[in-house]
Amino acid sequence: MSEGSSEGGAGDEPPGSDAGEELRYHVDGELAPASEATVSVEDRGFAYGDAAFETMRAYGGDVFRWDAHAARLADTCDALGLDHGLADADLRARVDETLAANGLADAYLKLSVTRGVQPGTLDPTPEVDPTVVVIAKPLPRGGVDSEPVHGGPAALQTTKTRKPSPRALPAGAKTHNYLNGILARLELRVTGADEALMLDPDGNVAEGATANLFFADGAALKTPSLDGPILPGVTRRTVIEIAEEEGIPVEEGTYAPDAVRGADEVFLTNSTWEIRPVETVDGLAVDGEGDGVEGPLTTLLSRLFDRRIEERYYDGERL
Amino acid sequence: MSEGSSEGGAGDEPPGSDAGEELRYHVDGELAPASEATVSVEDRGFAYGDAAFETMRAYGGDVFRWDAHAARLADTCDALGLDHGLADADLRARVDETLAANGLADAYLKLSVTRGVQPGTLDPTPEVDPTVVVIAKPLPRGGVDSEPVHGGPAALQTTKTRKPSPRALPAGAKTHNYLNGILARLELRVTGADEALMLDPDGNVAEGATANLFFADGAALKTPSLDGPILPGVTRRTVIEIAEEEGIPVEEGTYAPDAVRGADEVFLTNSTWEIRPVETVDGLAVDGEGDGVEGPLTTLLSRLFDRRIEERYYDGERL
Repeated sequence: MSEGSSEGGAGDEPPGSDAGEELRYHVDGELAPASEATVSVEDRGFAYGDAAFETMRAYGGDVFRWDAHAARLADTCDALGLDHGLADADLRARVDETLAANGLADAYLKLSVTRGVQPGTLDPTPEVDPTVVVIAKPLPRGGVDSEPVHGGPAALQTTKTRKPSPRALPAGAKTHNYLNGILARLELRVTGADEALMLDPDGNVAEGATANLFFADGAALKTPSLDGPILPGVTRRTVIEIAEEEGIPVEEGTYAPDAVRGADEVFLTNSTWEIRPVETVDGLAVDGEGDGVEGPLTTLLSRLFDRRIEERYYDGERL
Repeated sequence: MSEGSSEGGAGDEPPGSDAGEELRYHVDGELAPASEATVSVEDRGFAYGDAAFETMRAYGGDVFRWDAHAARLADTCDALGLDHGLADADLRARVDETLAANGLADAYLKLSVTRGVQPGTLDPTPEVDPTVVVIAKPLPRGGVDSEPVHGGPAALQTTKTRKPSPRALPAGAKTHNYLNGILARLELRVTGADEALMLDPDGNVAEGATANLFFADGAALKTPSLDGPILPGVTRRTVIEIAEEEGIPVEEGTYAPDAVRGADEVFLTNSTWEIRPVETVDGLAVDGEGDGVEGPLTTLLSRLFDRRIEERYYDGERL
């Protein structure tokens, strides 16, 4: 079990920062001190969670895979029928302004686009005056020899709360309707685990509350396929690309929970954590040894991930 | 098809009011002009839809069935593990203050309780500093000879978007995660219908996006049972009570969509609409006659509902 991890990063948000000057957030085109960064109580983002978002990480002043995040945000907005009319460059400019206003090069970022305030019915009107919010918080430098932004290896616990069917909510959409993940995390209060292993409606493995899941079985890396109710994670995609470049076989499929419980290695990915090793699944030590040493494939992929960050975002400074 | 109904009340919120003085809302213990009524962008109600709410109607200065709404709000908070620590009387006082501040006796009300701002992880902390929001908007007087607060008889359309399984989201909880209903309503843009007929994961009839469903088959009144993913509507319960008092047989069961399509009468209920007749289901006229005349059971129940309101909230003034 990882000490303190539920305080220090057991989400895809970083722990709160108490020190230093007040952060400034970007709201509706303006920068405002965090304490004055607000939205109307009639904003549909508040009233209904009617909003798309992305969580991202900036390294050395640049957003990690902005294009992939912008594309997924567009997919989410498509799924919601939310035609916000803003160019990617406009959204990117607001993100960059937020980083600059806070003097941040290495940061956690959350970009939200809501359907704004509309006349008082549930039916969205096609004409949208969106509310755009950018939140930034400092993170340690990434890349080679970086400090992990999570509370150490995760304790994973299968939850009763399952992912919704794509017939009820589109799985690929990242929206402010996040109660499903919260309900899964609430179950962990009893078990002491720090990430949920959520199943799809058929009882197959889907993902964590804020992370995609990978596991290794012999030489192959396995992860639930996007045919299921899985968020198409940007870090998930990056890890698959790195593995394929290294000649590590990657299989995207449908897996029962027992496949994860019996795996040699298990890890989680999201934009903030990057690659987070898993130490226990449902209370059982991964690989059965319980020695707390992360597996060789997890270590290799983490190093390659850090190297890629170092090359692309820090000019290879530490290579 | 009801003209203009998607503008004028096709939600459980009333149409926007352009006239008169600016409304005042209750936010976090204070009254504020609507244009200044805001919540933090870090409030969990905004970030995750992590909030419980009730929509209510006030008649003659008094909230319709406050106790039932307060009890359901408590049930929602239980489902969310949200221990807000506020007494019902405190919540009621904020509602009453909002009505008074706006000089409203007949009103639409929305009361929301969010998990507030917490340190930056998805996991809720047990200690909650809730954000309480009350929105009020004027409505016409209810009771006998009242003007309906909806756009006329509804056109109902079965949607592809289905209700989530209770394994994913608790059906009885009324939360700010309302995208499922929004996605259903978005489908209606193509069909021109004004309320969704949503099915449960097994393909049986559940409810509308903002309303419970009733239909009449011969002498009996039927409505989907709360065993399914159905919101336990306060108006739904009231209609069942009125029917039972009148000796009308009421059956709560599991029904295929064809049972509704072939029904003699169909109507919807929610706190704002009260009882709203349905004119067409999937483009077919209810009862096959298409004469636009609402059925006898719908008329009877609407009159009895209005009489009950008149007696209890207007001292029987129009009786």
